[in-house]
Amino acid sequence: MTQDEVTYVSGSTRLFGIVGDPIEQVRSPGMITAELRRRGADAVLVPIHVRPDDFEACVRHIMKIRNLGGLVFTIPYKARACALADELGPQARAVGAANALTRRTDGGWVADIFDGLGCIEAFRRQGFAFAGRRAMLIGAGGAGSAIGVAIACERPAAIRLFDGDAERARALADKIRRVDGRIAVEIGPPAWDGFDVLLNASPVGMLDDRRLPVAAAALPRQLVVFDAVVKPEKTGLLALAEASGCRTIYGRDMMRGQIARMVDFFGYPRNRTGDTGEATS
Amino acid sequence: MTQDEVTYVSGSTRLFGIVGDPIEQVRSPGMITAELRRRGADAVLVPIHVRPDDFEACVRHIMKIRNLGGLVFTIPYKARACALADELGPQARAVGAANALTRRTDGGWVADIFDGLGCIEAFRRQGFAFAGRRAMLIGAGGAGSAIGVAIACERPAAIRLFDGDAERARALADKIRRVDGRIAVEIGPPAWDGFDVLLNASPVGMLDDRRLPVAAAALPRQLVVFDAVVKPEKTGLLALAEASGCRTIYGRDMMRGQIARMVDFFGYPRNRTGDTGEATS
Repeated sequence: MTQDEVTYVSGSTRLFGIVGDPIEQVRSPGMITAELRRRGADAVLVPIHVRPDDFEACVRHIMKIRNLGGLVFTIPYKARACALADELGPQARAVGAANALTRRTDGGWVADIFDGLGCIEAFRRQGFAFAGRRAMLIGAGGAGSAIGVAIACERPAAIRLFDGDAERARALADKIRRVDGRIAVEIGPPAWDGFDVLLNASPVGMLDDRRLPVAAAALPRQLVVFDAVVKPEKTGLLALAEASGCRTIYGRDMMRGQIARMVDFFGYPRNRTGDTGEATS
Repeated sequence: MTQDEVTYVSGSTRLFGIVGDPIEQVRSPGMITAELRRRGADAVLVPIHVRPDDFEACVRHIMKIRNLGGLVFTIPYKARACALADELGPQARAVGAANALTRRTDGGWVADIFDGLGCIEAFRRQGFAFAGRRAMLIGAGGAGSAIGVAIACERPAAIRLFDGDAERARALADKIRRVDGRIAVEIGPPAWDGFDVLLNASPVGMLDDRRLPVAAAALPRQLVVFDAVVKPEKTGLLALAEASGCRTIYGRDMMRGQIARMVDFFGYPRNRTGDTGEATS
């Protein structure tokens, strides 16, 4: 005997999608759908593979689907996604990119970016607040910019930036200064002495890349160390940090934090049972 | 502990959709997704609610989604769906409507209609062939037309048509004659003496409608009786037929047959294990 129908999709299911090119590698369909369901939503998030030439026209028409609740944007569309919205949230305005779009109650569309907020949420869940702290951020690309801006919103004392592309580091420093002019922003090579937190948002250490984003044999044990890389889960930097006795926060923790924030944004409030976003696999 | 990810959708999932207005009532998402999965496909069919004013432009842009495998069309779009295809299959050409669209290997799109073929398949599974038989068909609307044309392709001896709207009956008679000029087609009130099969494709008997599509207290027991109505599953007509000792075929059997034919059309061959489309719930 086989099932005549699956139970996870029906005529009344609310539709969400992630738009990217390529699309096969994205984790959002499985993870965001799980979070939507944990919050009691009859909803599914599906992969939507759109070519760059088709992007604006195709997505503007997808937005006409009446049961579409929202869209997530990934590479290479985070900057172009801003133009689709009637309104940008504060993070998207400061970063100049968006990775989620949802309908306002008046039918208009609002976009914001959650990479950085997800990182802040991952730190907060471990009891770490950036207020008054000194942060070293490596990588000022898409993820790094979002993380830098999100940290800047938390009233840190200082942020030092490093990126192999000096122009990108300067652009992010400007964005951070615009968020909060009181933060001591500087650009320079990775440092950790005198810093409270070390964040890697560069691709160094991803997949088969065995390099470390810092040239160190050990780290001060009071340093909190974060790596945005999700594959492998425990990067070389995180292994070094743990060997040094440091507290660590993983890329997957940021992803969970981001997903929780996105599903808030999509209009599904968190349950009071406390399991939301605290999932373990 | 909760699930961190659902397993039924991922970045590599192939996307299918059913387009209609309204959409909440459709069964295809649950049923076609189940059939796709029984055949080993990593695929999901989602509801797509599109308003009539948006239909052509919206669907033409949805067709640009690279991982879209195909679309199903329901009320009110079966006639308008034909214009979206580069090529119409034989049933769609004869009926003048389409309810499924898929990509050819050359990237073009082909549409066809499967309501009628699903009906034929349901009869075939019960060992009934229309060749040389005499059929009484009640209802010449969307479903009735598709069923009439599909029967006409099976070399029946005769088809008698009844519809409250005489013009619709005449239009279907013409379609049947164009399929096969040798069939004895006539229009007139419901009859069963001398017929082998009685088919109801009218909405009479649907939901709270307790009427019968025929004025009879009993039916000849050699008559095979079919009702396209799916809610209720056992209509008054089917109950009368069973009380009369007739063999019966249900609307849900046609739906299963149609789903099996549509998933063939979408390019997923049937398993040899024989469970495909033979599902019981």
